[in-house]
Amino acid sequence: MSDPQVVRRPVTRVTGRSHEPLDDALAVERPLEMRVDGQALAVTLRTPGFDRELALGFLAGENVIRSSADVVGGREESSACQDAPDIIDLLLKPGHVLDWSKLERHFMATAACGLCGRAHLDAMRAGLTPVPEGPRIDTELLLALPARVRTQQTAFEATGGLHAAVWCDAAMEPRVLREDVGRHNAVDKVCGWLLEQGRRPVGEGLLWVSGRAGAELVLKAARAGIPTMASVGAPSSLAVELAEAAGMTLIGFLREGRMNVYCGQGRLQA
Amino acid sequence: MSDPQVVRRPVTRVTGRSHEPLDDALAVERPLEMRVDGQALAVTLRTPGFDRELALGFLAGENVIRSSADVVGGREESSACQDAPDIIDLLLKPGHVLDWSKLERHFMATAACGLCGRAHLDAMRAGLTPVPEGPRIDTELLLALPARVRTQQTAFEATGGLHAAVWCDAAMEPRVLREDVGRHNAVDKVCGWLLEQGRRPVGEGLLWVSGRAGAELVLKAARAGIPTMASVGAPSSLAVELAEAAGMTLIGFLREGRMNVYCGQGRLQA
Repeated sequence: MSDPQVVRRPVTRVTGRSHEPLDDALAVERPLEMRVDGQALAVTLRTPGFDRELALGFLAGENVIRSSADVVGGREESSACQDAPDIIDLLLKPGHVLDWSKLERHFMATAACGLCGRAHLDAMRAGLTPVPEGPRIDTELLLALPARVRTQQTAFEATGGLHAAVWCDAAMEPRVLREDVGRHNAVDKVCGWLLEQGRRPVGEGLLWVSGRAGAELVLKAARAGIPTMASVGAPSSLAVELAEAAGMTLIGFLREGRMNVYCGQGRLQA
Repeated sequence: MSDPQVVRRPVTRVTGRSHEPLDDALAVERPLEMRVDGQALAVTLRTPGFDRELALGFLAGENVIRSSADVVGGREESSACQDAPDIIDLLLKPGHVLDWSKLERHFMATAACGLCGRAHLDAMRAGLTPVPEGPRIDTELLLALPARVRTQQTAFEATGGLHAAVWCDAAMEPRVLREDVGRHNAVDKVCGWLLEQGRRPVGEGLLWVSGRAGAELVLKAARAGIPTMASVGAPSSLAVELAEAAGMTLIGFLREGRMNVYCGQGRLQA
């Protein structure tokens, strides 16, 4: 079996005016539903592998179990065409009581995630509306963006500890930048600003994020109707899949003068 | 008023054998409870500032609202001694119906967060058990750790898109390394491994994380009884507060031959 943590797919590497097709390795991101005694407890977007450890560690962190002896069995389920489970169900030892009412409150939400509880990839894809085509983006202006954004990340400059999100208009002009310890929060703040400006669905421009591009962030951009997303770091496998399904342009590793284009290259003009 | 996004506190910068006291800037991390029509919807750990945008963007991303006209009022609450709100309550326009039963399932959980729904800092601190003192850590071995760990991050090496977590024993020997697109998942996998080894509470050694140290990760380490945590990136303000409250040693910016010690320096031997 191949490494379940990494998947390969074609990508276009742009360096200045040169375009080079490459075969890139992406980190796999897939939802896992964690169940206890058959009842769904949480869904997490994870990289497959060591799923039992993940569930045990999660349950121990929540004080649901205290030792591995509290778990007397486990079962994994995979849907067709997947080499990794999408459900793991742990059976607690008889008499080990889980106070679901306490957990329900506890798990309300964090980090403004847009996928929680949607265990199935199909449901995620079905929830996507295609983004507007929007005006084409000038590649040269895009490649010059990193330097422009850096000067605006004032709190990051001071602490090294904040993510940033930026919305640029069709002319690649940064119009709003927000910083936050949480990636999702920074994107939500930008989306809130766009809403207050009466610009939703957005229909043009680009969402830039300082870190990696995960599935949740792509989903937020797609729901806001932002046609293009660019990240400084790597995208996950699921981020690329969702961007493709929404008809978005997804760019990763955007640095001074170079980038990888994962899908939707038609929106970029040379 | 000072910048609500940044807080300053003393730190010890270690470079080789030199120890230098510094005044460091940390990104502020604080819980915000988002309410709709008086009812709690979600709690997120965020950097204060633009909280209304955050709540609006979050609600729009969840398809709860479609334009700013759907929100007719808002109210913020702050507890004493805080210059940022810890509750924001948005009032939807009359007749705008929110299907709570759908959201409840939706927000079950993501990224294995350990704080969700616990709006109050006091509750977080009260939930902490002091970690064991454990054997002291050889500073020289600790400063040599980054190079040793790097060679083991195979999936990161291939993709650039994965976080890693490592548990090192008291001799600073890396015993388990796990990689995941989610920081929390990588830590949960390490904690699950420790549980399966019968090593919980852990009582010695160090949890190393490849990214930044947020409050949720410190809480997971504290609950597992790991006395020391070290991150490649910056810690947040709340991460330092919680580590201090649990009697942990917290190290940030751990790179080849240097690091910042935020609290618990007594556990390190020169």
